[in-house]
Amino acid sequence: MTSTPVDPSFTNLLENTRDASRVLGTQSTDVKNRVLSALQGFLRENTDKIVAANALDIEAAQAGGVAESLQDRLRLTPERVEGLAQSVGEIIGLPDPIGEVVRGSTLPNGLAISQVRVPFGVVGAIYEARPNVTVDIAALCIKSGNAAVLRGGSLAENSNQALVGLIGDALATEGISRDAVVTIDPFGRDGATWLMRSRGLVDVLIPRGSHSLIQAVVTESQVPVIETGEGNVHIFIDDSADLERAVDIVENAKVQRPSVCNAVETVLVNQSVAKTVIPPLVERLSGRGVTVHGCEATAALADVVPATDDDWATEYLSLEIAIRVVADVDEAISHIRTYSTGHTESILTESVERSDKFLREVDSATVMVNASTRFTDGGEFGFGAEVGISTQKLHARGPMGLPELTSTKWLVRGSGQIRH
Amino acid sequence: MTSTPVDPSFTNLLENTRDASRVLGTQSTDVKNRVLSALQGFLRENTDKIVAANALDIEAAQAGGVAESLQDRLRLTPERVEGLAQSVGEIIGLPDPIGEVVRGSTLPNGLAISQVRVPFGVVGAIYEARPNVTVDIAALCIKSGNAAVLRGGSLAENSNQALVGLIGDALATEGISRDAVVTIDPFGRDGATWLMRSRGLVDVLIPRGSHSLIQAVVTESQVPVIETGEGNVHIFIDDSADLERAVDIVENAKVQRPSVCNAVETVLVNQSVAKTVIPPLVERLSGRGVTVHGCEATAALADVVPATDDDWATEYLSLEIAIRVVADVDEAISHIRTYSTGHTESILTESVERSDKFLREVDSATVMVNASTRFTDGGEFGFGAEVGISTQKLHARGPMGLPELTSTKWLVRGSGQIRH
Repeated sequence: MTSTPVDPSFTNLLENTRDASRVLGTQSTDVKNRVLSALQGFLRENTDKIVAANALDIEAAQAGGVAESLQDRLRLTPERVEGLAQSVGEIIGLPDPIGEVVRGSTLPNGLAISQVRVPFGVVGAIYEARPNVTVDIAALCIKSGNAAVLRGGSLAENSNQALVGLIGDALATEGISRDAVVTIDPFGRDGATWLMRSRGLVDVLIPRGSHSLIQAVVTESQVPVIETGEGNVHIFIDDSADLERAVDIVENAKVQRPSVCNAVETVLVNQSVAKTVIPPLVERLSGRGVTVHGCEATAALADVVPATDDDWATEYLSLEIAIRVVADVDEAISHIRTYSTGHTESILTESVERSDKFLREVDSATVMVNASTRFTDGGEFGFGAEVGISTQKLHARGPMGLPELTSTKWLVRGSGQIRH
Repeated sequence: MTSTPVDPSFTNLLENTRDASRVLGTQSTDVKNRVLSALQGFLRENTDKIVAANALDIEAAQAGGVAESLQDRLRLTPERVEGLAQSVGEIIGLPDPIGEVVRGSTLPNGLAISQVRVPFGVVGAIYEARPNVTVDIAALCIKSGNAAVLRGGSLAENSNQALVGLIGDALATEGISRDAVVTIDPFGRDGATWLMRSRGLVDVLIPRGSHSLIQAVVTESQVPVIETGEGNVHIFIDDSADLERAVDIVENAKVQRPSVCNAVETVLVNQSVAKTVIPPLVERLSGRGVTVHGCEATAALADVVPATDDDWATEYLSLEIAIRVVADVDEAISHIRTYSTGHTESILTESVERSDKFLREVDSATVMVNASTRFTDGGEFGFGAEVGISTQKLHARGPMGLPELTSTKWLVRGSGQIRH
């Protein structure tokens, strides 16, 4: 961590954002939707400008020898800008969580108490080279009445500056300060460190990106953090599973989009069905270009790369998978406890007893029976846009929608009550 | 923070606790209630033994010149032990939050999803010289299926050891490992630091105690924290308030129990009613032994100690109070924004417009109209026993009951669904 003292202009920026959050936080749903609607229009009208700013980032990335996959995440095309505008449109269509009464009652002494949803205040986000996240997080924050402080990384600096400018223009159409959504990219790496120390100015910090980024934020931040996204995801094929369906589900969970956190990484197979299911499973996966790492028992049944202990702990995020033969559901659960990141695990079984056991004893954000792990997703769950998938237990767990971007407060209405 | 490397026996202890949490977390409500019932009996049967262990702590505290008020918090009498047994009885009577379905639906593709409450796993607690907290936290954790790692401080070491021993005996009556509730007091200050670094072994850390203790945990912990308890609490007397009632409410909020976090510390008075309300208010408070610190305008109306800026920021927790005259509700809200710890604020008013404004714009865990701030309390809110009062926005805000000691997980039941 840097020990550079905090730049006063940084503190000043965050104080202005906190002030703006108080204005944004009390706006009606109509006002917030009009801001988002203006943003949608500005994104479409300024597509050329956005793509041109992005081209500067891509050029610098190419000159700096940045990997092609990272460049791809960084790149904005006219189609991708239209995708951003459409995702803002989806957020307009979502219900506003603010003001929802979560619970309440009238106490015996006549006090009426109610717990209502309120914005956090200021949400901080730290991510890397993904300009689409700038628009997603800003739009979700505006809809939930939160101001946002964004640290999108130097690789995407020009793209993010252009996008944050348009977001400010949209806020201004309703007379809301541009300070409600700001980028701290100009402060470089120091800015990220200062943000993690800004207790009292930032209410929650959400890191999105690589393992090392998330771990750095989680361990260094003094601001409360919501940890997202790492997924070392497992599927267990029980001996009672429908084996044809099992092969289809594993294929789907690995191949449909291998680079995302809900893709399966390790398949555990009950030893009684290993001989029947492993050969067709490996054949299907290999046929789809997947490299299969297998334990010794797997290697005795099919042509695989020998797996090491490292494979069980690896989130490949690519066309690779590990297969291990286990004695039974207990050994499967024990393997998952040792290696899982607590994102998603699925059991394939026709046994009620074993599905109940798996649902009860596996301690992950999402635990499934007879379904592809690819369904752990805010969109699939019906939440509309997604802030991320929380893998921590505090505040939010699993796919996070707008309600997860809120806190609550208690309102107590009395008529002179005193305590005896 | 210590840089002493973690003692392997500390890690071993926490690993055993984590294993025990998996057993405790899947017990039925009946089993958990039987453990608590056994604990209640053991507390009563062993009152002499507990009081004797406590006498050793009191003796050491007296020899060490510990303040009388701290000694009082530390002291266990037969009556106080009976109080602990009764509070365990109340927790037996509370509904078990585990397994509650928070929300759920059947998706268009037939997947049935439901979000259910589950235990956190392992709850850590750091507190000081209050052996009653040992029983409270342990009983709340057992009821909510959580294991507990307790750091109660060297001052209460003998008392806590005796109590944790009885808790272990109670767990053993149902065959649950004693490792489900442990104390790390034998590891001294290093143990507290190691606990704050035990990511993966401890799921949430709750500090209870002084400002400096809570701030140290909040800034140093790598384990997610729920911040509790600091209350620089305000009452604003609007010019439309019923002034006689206002004097009663302020008296109650200050005098009924001055040492607790929901006691009022600063009263803000609308300037138009200052002349009418301040003289009788100061007279009433002085008559109850309260030292009144007043701003210049207050000092012009009554006999008070001149207040400094420090008074506005002070949580007295004693028979002292500050009074400040303000122009209107806006200046009151602005004063609260500057000085409040976000615990509880109350407006006394007959104006709907101003009560709505205050409820909307004051960003505290509890915001009240025409009531004593002493009502911010888990017992008063009907939650039974209380883990603490959260002053943070993440996960829990305000009085925390059993549901606040839980996380959730998503259960997804399918019949072979794959994603397209």
